[in-house]
Amino acid sequence: MSEPIRLFVTGGTFDKEYDEIRGTLYFADTHLPQMLEMGRCRVEVKVRTLMMIDSLDMTDAGRDVIAHNCAEVAERHIVITHGTDTMVDTARTLAQKVPDKTIVLTGAMIPIAFGSSDGLFNLGGAIAAVQVLPPGAYITMNGRVFPWHDVRKNRSTGIFEALE
Amino acid sequence: MSEPIRLFVTGGTFDKEYDEIRGTLYFADTHLPQMLEMGRCRVEVKVRTLMMIDSLDMTDAGRDVIAHNCAEVAERHIVITHGTDTMVDTARTLAQKVPDKTIVLTGAMIPIAFGSSDGLFNLGGAIAAVQVLPPGAYITMNGRVFPWHDVRKNRSTGIFEALE
Amino acid sequence: MSEPIRLFVTGGTFDKEYDEIRGTLYFADTHLPQMLEMGRCRVEVKVRTLMMIDSLDMTDAGRDVIAHNCAEVAERHIVITHGTDTMVDTARTLAQKVPDKTIVLTGAMIPIAFGSSDGLFNLGGAIAAVQVLPPGAYITMNGRVFPWHDVRKNRSTGIFEALE
Amino acid sequence: MSEPIRLFVTGGTFDKEYDEIRGTLYFADTHLPQMLEMGRCRVEVKVRTLMMIDSLDMTDAGRDVIAHNCAEVAERHIVITHGTDTMVDTARTLAQKVPDKTIVLTGAMIPIAFGSSDGLFNLGGAIAAVQVLPPGAYITMNGRVFPWHDVRKNRSTGIFEALE
Repeated sequence: MSEPIRLFVTGGTFDKEYDEIRGTLYFADTHLPQMLEMGRCRVEVKVRTLMMIDSLDMTDAGRDVIAHNCAEVAERHIVITHGTDTMVDTARTLAQKVPDKTIVLTGAMIPIAFGSSDGLFNLGGAIAAVQVLPPGAYITMNGRVFPWHDVRKNRSTGIFEALE
Repeated sequence: MSEPIRLFVTGGTFDKEYDEIRGTLYFADTHLPQMLEMGRCRVEVKVRTLMMIDSLDMTDAGRDVIAHNCAEVAERHIVITHGTDTMVDTARTLAQKVPDKTIVLTGAMIPIAFGSSDGLFNLGGAIAAVQVLPPGAYITMNGRVFPWHDVRKNRSTGIFEALE
Repeated sequence: MSEPIRLFVTGGTFDKEYDEIRGTLYFADTHLPQMLEMGRCRVEVKVRTLMMIDSLDMTDAGRDVIAHNCAEVAERHIVITHGTDTMVDTARTLAQKVPDKTIVLTGAMIPIAFGSSDGLFNLGGAIAAVQVLPPGAYITMNGRVFPWHDVRKNRSTGIFEALE
Repeated sequence: MSEPIRLFVTGGTFDKEYDEIRGTLYFADTHLPQMLEMGRCRVEVKVRTLMMIDSLDMTDAGRDVIAHNCAEVAERHIVITHGTDTMVDTARTLAQKVPDKTIVLTGAMIPIAFGSSDGLFNLGGAIAAVQVLPPGAYITMNGRVFPWHDVRKNRSTGIFEALE
């Protein structure tokens, strides 16, 4: 159970920062390495930042980049941090294009830079789940583990839920 | 995947507090409900505090209490917060006495009350793992998921590791 | 030195929240009471929220409300949380309209809801300064204490600085 | 008001750490530079660690070291972080031996390493107070500013209070 995990960073609420001059949110560097350090993570996690975008700006070309990277790396266990709005769409693409690996997408409702973020909880769930689930694409958010084909984000509540 | 989870609290580093008057660490109420709230946990978790002790003070009688409670509740998915020093011993007891349920023990290297605790990461891992693992007893700590029979705590490093 | 302090809340970065659904910043309730609790503040502080706005939206009518409240309350030591962009303008108004009280304006570069905010540091500075300064209007930000007539916010750096 | 401040670190609850292996509290490096960074402190603060001890272990020889350093440095504004138990005793020594400088002692009821510490609030108060108070020795804790001759720590409540 201790083979290395690949972690791809794509942006999302997870990594948003507060711009002190302009009072707005923006992306700088990813917080994932510091989060793994805070979690005292004892499984090797290789972090690579693929992009740093709002998931509303995720395109099919972007999803191809993610799928290509998932297929190309040696690791069979892959965690992806992703904005929540289109996380399900990316999961679907990955399920189709990279069926032989276990891929878990996760994110956060609150930026990590906020003290009360759910991000560390979600990351812990994704790291654990990716090691015990069979190949396929999944979403792990807020204590839930969904296969890609049975989840949607409820836009009015912001909560991920099973289709039925 | 959304059936309720039972969470038993037994103490450990997780729930240690700082006594402002005496400058020592002690136990008060559990932080688990607030942690589930911070994680914006969307699966129902029923919390029950069984004891609030250092795991060095865990006795066979204490383990029997835990095993009895695991067997008695309706939930099949059980997470237990536990001090790290004797977590493996309790996992062994539960594997033998409650073989038909999925039981995940977890803890923390740093009290939750400290800002930089690994507790939220570990709790996220335990909540996710308990929903996808087959019946048996496991330990989820710092990104690792161990079956009860293949783990020990290295006392000099404080790290959980596989036997081989 | 233990007479009560009046704290007027007007909004600003201090009290901005993150909207989990829309991914934007907004105002809800003030965080000041919880901050005073975290600081274990042992001087009585009477909190009143006057408005909850960006300081770019502060009008002369708004400043009149603040000045009126400063004059009307019994307390001689007054702290005001205020957005940084127009904090100096409000300080000027208060210096002219309420010359017989010690009034300290403070704010934050980062919302309190973020874990790494300067807000608690600034609030501690304002609470201490208001008790030892003579009557007049002051700005306390990031370790500096400025009289109202010798301070400006550098818009490009976001830093408060003396005029000369 | 922007002349440099000297900050002497002597230990105390402020800088206590949690030992993950032994589950006890200990001293490592000071957190003061990171705290000044979090407070986005814009006045120059020169930090020097003199000792790293519980204030119950503070001796007359230790107080002489502190007094000597206060007298020797060029700065006229001095902040000292100190354990709370004997902070008043050290303040008395400094009032007598270094009467021509403004010296503010401060500390924390909760270690900085804990997320909910009062330390940042107290540090903000000390940095502000030291710049506006006349020469003498003071204690700034939890929103209060005490001259050295009118303060004691109530051992049963842990709170600093005026003598009458």
